[in-house]
Amino acid sequence: MRHGAVAFLAAALVAAALLTAPLGGAPPLLTDGMRADLASLVASAKATDGAYETIRELLEAAGPRLAGSPGDALGVAWAVRALKVRGFSNVRTEPVTAPHWDRGEESGELLLPVPLRLAFCALGGSVGTGPEGLEADVVEATSLEGVDALGERAKGKIVLVWKVMERTGEGSGYGATVPIRGSGAARAAKVGAVAVVIRSVGTSNARFPHTGAMNAPDGGPRIPAAALAIPDADLLHSYLSKGTRVRLKMKLGARRLPDVETANVIGEIPGREKPEEIVVVGGHLDSWDLGMGAVDDGAGCGISIEAARLIGKLPKRPRRTIRVVLFANEENGLAGGQAYAKAHAAELARHVAAVEADGGAGRTSGFAWTAGPSAAPLMAELGAFLAPFGWGEAKKGGGGADIGPLRAAGVPMFSPSQDMARYFDLHHTADDTFDKIDREELATGVATVAALLYTLAEAETPPERIPEEERERRRR
Amino acid sequence: MRHGAVAFLAAALVAAALLTAPLGGAPPLLTDGMRADLASLVASAKATDGAYETIRELLEAAGPRLAGSPGDALGVAWAVRALKVRGFSNVRTEPVTAPHWDRGEESGELLLPVPLRLAFCALGGSVGTGPEGLEADVVEATSLEGVDALGERAKGKIVLVWKVMERTGEGSGYGATVPIRGSGAARAAKVGAVAVVIRSVGTSNARFPHTGAMNAPDGGPRIPAAALAIPDADLLHSYLSKGTRVRLKMKLGARRLPDVETANVIGEIPGREKPEEIVVVGGHLDSWDLGMGAVDDGAGCGISIEAARLIGKLPKRPRRTIRVVLFANEENGLAGGQAYAKAHAAELARHVAAVEADGGAGRTSGFAWTAGPSAAPLMAELGAFLAPFGWGEAKKGGGGADIGPLRAAGVPMFSPSQDMARYFDLHHTADDTFDKIDREELATGVATVAALLYTLAEAETPPERIPEEERERRRR
Repeated sequence: MRHGAVAFLAAALVAAALLTAPLGGAPPLLTDGMRADLASLVASAKATDGAYETIRELLEAAGPRLAGSPGDALGVAWAVRALKVRGFSNVRTEPVTAPHWDRGEESGELLLPVPLRLAFCALGGSVGTGPEGLEADVVEATSLEGVDALGERAKGKIVLVWKVMERTGEGSGYGATVPIRGSGAARAAKVGAVAVVIRSVGTSNARFPHTGAMNAPDGGPRIPAAALAIPDADLLHSYLSKGTRVRLKMKLGARRLPDVETANVIGEIPGREKPEEIVVVGGHLDSWDLGMGAVDDGAGCGISIEAARLIGKLPKRPRRTIRVVLFANEENGLAGGQAYAKAHAAELARHVAAVEADGGAGRTSGFAWTAGPSAAPLMAELGAFLAPFGWGEAKKGGGGADIGPLRAAGVPMFSPSQDMARYFDLHHTADDTFDKIDREELATGVATVAALLYTLAEAETPPERIPEEERERRRR
Repeated sequence: MRHGAVAFLAAALVAAALLTAPLGGAPPLLTDGMRADLASLVASAKATDGAYETIRELLEAAGPRLAGSPGDALGVAWAVRALKVRGFSNVRTEPVTAPHWDRGEESGELLLPVPLRLAFCALGGSVGTGPEGLEADVVEATSLEGVDALGERAKGKIVLVWKVMERTGEGSGYGATVPIRGSGAARAAKVGAVAVVIRSVGTSNARFPHTGAMNAPDGGPRIPAAALAIPDADLLHSYLSKGTRVRLKMKLGARRLPDVETANVIGEIPGREKPEEIVVVGGHLDSWDLGMGAVDDGAGCGISIEAARLIGKLPKRPRRTIRVVLFANEENGLAGGQAYAKAHAAELARHVAAVEADGGAGRTSGFAWTAGPSAAPLMAELGAFLAPFGWGEAKKGGGGADIGPLRAAGVPMFSPSQDMARYFDLHHTADDTFDKIDREELATGVATVAALLYTLAEAETPPERIPEEERERRRR
């Protein structure tokens, strides 16, 4: 199968490399030399298992990597070694001060109407319940507004926020549902609830609860917050919709500890002509604590490292420097992305682009870009080059959480468009493990990111910066 | 969709009902009247959601149902109510003395090479570790013979038995792999291991450990025994195959408590001509403790109850009595099946057949039978009748664990042939929940079992008993 695929690709590559017909009569922005390099990168990405083995190495060397955990430090140490071994230059760490939250021991039990050990976990940043735990009847809302509307009925109760996340290829169901995780506790606390439990913000009915960050309420009371696996949440919903009394006991050992020092890890492929101009590429090295952080975001680290490594192996390095940044603490506070933007504030004018891979390990359909309008022809040419492989979709809206802080400086932002239909089955759960990554699908991400990086680092004119009026920071 | 399916079925039924051409020129064993009843049963099974709602009711009323647990008692109470409400006669419980094993609190942690909370559970019947837990390096074997061969190297160690179960439609991978669960602890204890952990005997890489019964070693030392979810077992295997030192800490709160009284629950559709002749149909009411026992074996209970209920609704009940038996304690000792055979020893000569549904909720392809050879023409006719629906496969080898003890008396045994390709993804895990059942697939089981039951209860001549030389008891 793989050999057949490589043969097919080789044929497609020849066709693509010859496709230098300029758009609208202007000379092509991707020169013949660039096309040959791009063809070689795509072929290498498909022929090697570089990212796959890099991810395996990271996971086996570090395990889960929540900021402040032993795995976090192991991950940083691994990343330094891994970048050096792979021939990167200027390998270094940069300090990041991050929140340290620890889950401790936790359990959730249905007491009424039947005894059942629930598939249940604290949301990241939740306060604990104390060692005795807490026990209360459950009332239900299906939205944040519904929580507000509970009013007096929530007093002394555990509020279940039951809202179904839709499965979509591009992951849009997440944005529509995740506010219940971010703000459920704060809103339930306001109406006097003693705790909140949410239907996991995820798409799989496998019995894994999904953790994830929540917003600290500003000054208001803080109550314990947890997620139920979807079958458990749906069971409670079924009882409550029939008027059956539901009573839970929950114990959360969660606690906030003093902030910790962790690190962004950096390595470079220095540019041949303009080494001071920088194209950043990265994913986040940290992960939630329940799983191994394979698709979120071991995959993004593996894709970034491998894409840059392949470019470093070209006979001629591109004009500009490619800088791999493996960000700390994306999950629980975004301290790594913020620290990077702050530490590099003086050189952001020379950051010509930033690429983030934090959408899992699924097959790419192309890439997304956020830049000034004059970048469009270059993006269209790259899309046309990648089209024969099925990765030709060049759409607006690229970016990522870690590179988000660079937006204020107008740094153009890019990301591979990965199929996320299964991503939210795994994301933030115990089930985010290495075996969930498909080699072939992963390689499409490496190829797309390598092509994007190379084009950004080599193009005669870099993409226009994000216009002033579009620089307002948005988190992904 | 459902209406379309019903219309299609109606057309197929007409065709099937007309297909009375005898096999080999003899008069048909399925008379025209029987065919009309069978057609009506199949149509009803597809048109109602009886089994689906019955299973939902059971799970919501009882939760997990391991013998001796609160859910076990709730399940028995529910079953009595459910059979009465559905119009069964002679609804009663029969006492069963069963082992009582309790999991308690448990945890498994990888200590070396990286810290990781493992997806891990005690095997049913395991001894505990004491509150301190135990900690040891891990050595690996890939078979029971491999465990023996470890010899001195196992001394003081935790033995990992890493054997991959194959996914097959008819579930044959289970039989080939389950001995590591049954005998792994006994064999590892013999070579001086302090504990055994096995790769879960299951087919899904979702991170759920699979529990299940193990054999008590006869007189030998007893050591704690646990299963690792497949990704966890494969991670350890990967480390060990590179020569990396692996060290685990495990705590099992498991303990054996005094035996408990539980019950088989029975209800009948009395026969119209020969009520003393009995066709048994059942599944097991108990379940493992981690999940809700939806596919194992809420589904079998739901199928059995609904198939019998539909027969009871026919204008004319069949000749013989259909007796639904919901068996206690299949999972942890088979006490229910044994108690039934013992309590009814005197009337086993009048048991003309026994049908068990304990293969999940998957689509049926037909049924399997174990009887004397002269039963073949009846089975073939029934197969031909069911063929237009896709359920025509009449193959040898029917039976089930709970009805197994009836084999010694020669009682012919039957089971629906259900697609088990996904069954061992869920079986004995926390993920065995209601949402995993597909209504349409489940209904094929109801239809097949109803057709089988009706045929066995109505046929002029019941199937020939199992020949003496084939009565040696075999557990499924």
